[in-house]
Amino acid sequence: MKELALASVYQLIEPGPVVLLTTALNGRANVMTMSWHMMVEFEPPLVACVVSDADYSFAALRKTRECVIAIPAVHLAQKIVDVGNCSGRDVAKFEKFGLTPIPAKRVAAPLIAECFANLECKVADSRLVNMHNLFVLEVLKAWIDPTQKNPKTIHHHGYGRFVVDGEVIKLKSRMR
Amino acid sequence: MKELALASVYQLIEPGPVVLLTTALNGRANVMTMSWHMMVEFEPPLVACVVSDADYSFAALRKTRECVIAIPAVHLAQKIVDVGNCSGRDVAKFEKFGLTPIPAKRVAAPLIAECFANLECKVADSRLVNMHNLFVLEVLKAWIDPTQKNPKTIHHHGYGRFVVDGEVIKLKSRMR
Repeated sequence: MKELALASVYQLIEPGPVVLLTTALNGRANVMTMSWHMMVEFEPPLVACVVSDADYSFAALRKTRECVIAIPAVHLAQKIVDVGNCSGRDVAKFEKFGLTPIPAKRVAAPLIAECFANLECKVADSRLVNMHNLFVLEVLKAWIDPTQKNPKTIHHHGYGRFVVDGEVIKLKSRMR
Repeated sequence: MKELALASVYQLIEPGPVVLLTTALNGRANVMTMSWHMMVEFEPPLVACVVSDADYSFAALRKTRECVIAIPAVHLAQKIVDVGNCSGRDVAKFEKFGLTPIPAKRVAAPLIAECFANLECKVADSRLVNMHNLFVLEVLKAWIDPTQKNPKTIHHHGYGRFVVDGEVIKLKSRMR
């Protein structure tokens, strides 16, 4: 994994890919599938996300205030769905689905070796957690796998229907 | 425009498309381009979004507590960028870019006729506005244009690079 400038993190999250979220509680790592996230600030990068209080990861995220957002490319689509179809209450997901945890630098939650990008995060604002399960995260460190060239992400449209990244178009934009 | 069940709104926002946001202040409609949004709750649908306090729309959204999220398909890509490249301070954007406002049912902000989906919204939670420019919106009414079949959306990767929806894959998922 190669370090990525924090100023470039938004280019990973802004397109709306399905991501994996890892946590570690009492030495046990877990991973969930997540589609409800958005950028909040460019730099330092802030990312908001919703983790349902029905998800096993919720307690770990609230208690440790740390996580990793790992971004998988389309070749991991089946694993992404498998991870989302079960709970860390019942399953050791890293082992079961053949995902490889790598120690992170700034948080206890692991990176995922198979993902083309990994963002180490701490909770920056928890005011909307009780009402909306909405966490604002600060990205502390970002990693990309330079061997995965032009990774295509997937976007969930509900009930297992995913749209894969297609054609790229470039338009003259003043928008960062 | 045909009404869409509120329970289906998440299927529009969850994939992370670039959207347009309309507001109306003192009888004057405006529109901006927005990529920082996410679902927060299925039903009633809650959508969080970030509107920078540097954007002309910020004051209108904060004051009126109403807006419309309009979702454009790829054939509108050039207009999406044009809208984002200027400010409502200087330009009457609906007229300048040939976008057609349609009166909404529950809010003063207009729908956009050219978009395949329109969501009428009111601000539901403004606690993170001062710190993060983050609004939580409740979708009051949702509309789709049934004549636009299988619309492809675009996803911003920064500096005018957009990825268009590509291949659709279906996997057996328990995730709504």
